[in-house]
Amino acid sequence: MTMSKPEQRRKAPTIHDVAREAGVSRGTVSRVLNGGHYVSPSAREAVDSAIRRTGYVVNRHARSLITGRSDSVGFLLTEPQERFFEDPNFNVLLRGCTQALAAHDIPLLLMIAGTEDERRRITRYITAGHVDGVLLVSSHSGDPLAARLREAGVPLVACGKPLGQASKVAYVAADDRDGARDMVRHLLSLGRRTVGMVTGPLDTPGGTERLAGYREVLAEAGMAADDRLVVSGDYSRASGEAGAAELLGRVPDMDALFVASDLMAQGAVAALQRAGRRVPEDIAVGGFDDSSAALGAHPELTTIRQPWDRISAEMVRVLLAQIGGEDPAAVILPTELVRRGSA
Amino acid sequence: MTMSKPEQRRKAPTIHDVAREAGVSRGTVSRVLNGGHYVSPSAREAVDSAIRRTGYVVNRHARSLITGRSDSVGFLLTEPQERFFEDPNFNVLLRGCTQALAAHDIPLLLMIAGTEDERRRITRYITAGHVDGVLLVSSHSGDPLAARLREAGVPLVACGKPLGQASKVAYVAADDRDGARDMVRHLLSLGRRTVGMVTGPLDTPGGTERLAGYREVLAEAGMAADDRLVVSGDYSRASGEAGAAELLGRVPDMDALFVASDLMAQGAVAALQRAGRRVPEDIAVGGFDDSSAALGAHPELTTIRQPWDRISAEMVRVLLAQIGGEDPAAVILPTELVRRGSA
Repeated sequence: MTMSKPEQRRKAPTIHDVAREAGVSRGTVSRVLNGGHYVSPSAREAVDSAIRRTGYVVNRHARSLITGRSDSVGFLLTEPQERFFEDPNFNVLLRGCTQALAAHDIPLLLMIAGTEDERRRITRYITAGHVDGVLLVSSHSGDPLAARLREAGVPLVACGKPLGQASKVAYVAADDRDGARDMVRHLLSLGRRTVGMVTGPLDTPGGTERLAGYREVLAEAGMAADDRLVVSGDYSRASGEAGAAELLGRVPDMDALFVASDLMAQGAVAALQRAGRRVPEDIAVGGFDDSSAALGAHPELTTIRQPWDRISAEMVRVLLAQIGGEDPAAVILPTELVRRGSA
Repeated sequence: MTMSKPEQRRKAPTIHDVAREAGVSRGTVSRVLNGGHYVSPSAREAVDSAIRRTGYVVNRHARSLITGRSDSVGFLLTEPQERFFEDPNFNVLLRGCTQALAAHDIPLLLMIAGTEDERRRITRYITAGHVDGVLLVSSHSGDPLAARLREAGVPLVACGKPLGQASKVAYVAADDRDGARDMVRHLLSLGRRTVGMVTGPLDTPGGTERLAGYREVLAEAGMAADDRLVVSGDYSRASGEAGAAELLGRVPDMDALFVASDLMAQGAVAALQRAGRRVPEDIAVGGFDDSSAALGAHPELTTIRQPWDRISAEMVRVLLAQIGGEDPAAVILPTELVRRGSA
């Protein structure tokens, strides 16, 4: 595509013009363009008006050629493609990130890397500088991708706490443990006493943290931990179905079930009903996410709302700050219990 | 991300080493790497073995720095994000293209540009050379994107015939008109005489070509054209529901309905059943695509199978050929009638 560059180069104006017009350094213009960190209000005002006068904003491309920036961000999903289409959370998160970046006129590139080969290829692409930073979604702790990208100096923000490297990698997460505690407390408040759980993958923060919250509340209620009441899923609907069936087989008198995602909970409700149990009369079911899957279940799911809009906005804010030179940060956002028909 | 480049540069080997080792020019190595067009079998063999000996293939990145190639391909969808998640065709097409490119060790970048702003941003990104070529999906004829990319010299292959510029843009398409003819002939062969149609958007090839096939067969059967029997949808499930309800209101004795996509047909069947019609007894319904939506309908849909595996493989083949220097080509693939319960 180099044939397009001469034409682009001929286009005025460059970042130099803006700096000259504003009477500031190129670095100052660059910092303003990347979120305005470490820039005085007066300098920012001068740059903004210089950008308007020069019409610079319409030509980020020329800037890219000068700065080596791609002026783009990657949305990297380290899950199989099928999960991307099945789980409504990805749709919501992707839309939120796209909109937050649109306000900065920055395009979002989707990268799906469910296999090791795909991760190797996409890492090669990212480290070649084709995106300025990466929004990393559902990275498993076994996944070396986050570490690889960090070593290559790629600005990175994970959705959810990356297990094992949280101190080095920026992330934005809902308070998984607190949300799980709210749900289990709610199930107990209904008078239920035999509360099972279908967890997420235990190499993901949502998997371990929500399980921890469940165990804490049962312990606080003076209930003995019973591993027969816990089974792990992979966040797919099918794994929720299989998990609920497995628990019923182990503990037929289970009267409540906490499922670590709405999509799995949808499958769990179907499995319980197939086994002749009424939801919520015989078994109260609580989900997690408040995704469209919660409304697709019958009855609709009582669940824990993840603040997806805030999560995506914060991921973009923290990533652009890093691209602008700031250090990584972690942001934890509160969840909320949403009561519907299932518990 | 420039900080990663010195490290990468230190890595042997480069395309120069391969050329030296093979005793051929860099251009020859480049052509082999891009599909082997215009390369003699002996030169190709020499390059292949040189690549093996030098272990070059593991470092396309160094090559990118030399050739200016990104060694990546974009999958550009000019539809709103919701359509991407709703229509199972995109999932299948994306997987096929990803797999076909994987055989060449080339990563696929997803680009969703449903709004004019998103198209402007993504065009800027593409013409900056961050991808070597674009697989363009569901481009509407009103959409100037294909023309813009062509003018910038971006190798491009459209999925479906781009209306108005077919002579200039490479494309791969199922034979929409012939498939529609097969379906309408099938409906008539069942003895149905009042055949309605819900078309796709009439600024898309699938919209116009499938409608043309429907009209041709009715004309050949000596049936007068009746515009009350035709309504347009937008390929969404909701538009299939609304379209079928609209047609029932206009022509209560309609006894067959051809719907231009399985997802719309799924909605149409639901609307007909809500109106008290039995499918297929009262109204036979035929879809198009043979996507998972055909199996999600009750009864399962009789439909026209689009050869998605061949379509994606051909799109990748034609695109890599263009990146390798070949002229654009058009590929039309046959469809197949799949009989199930709905007609």
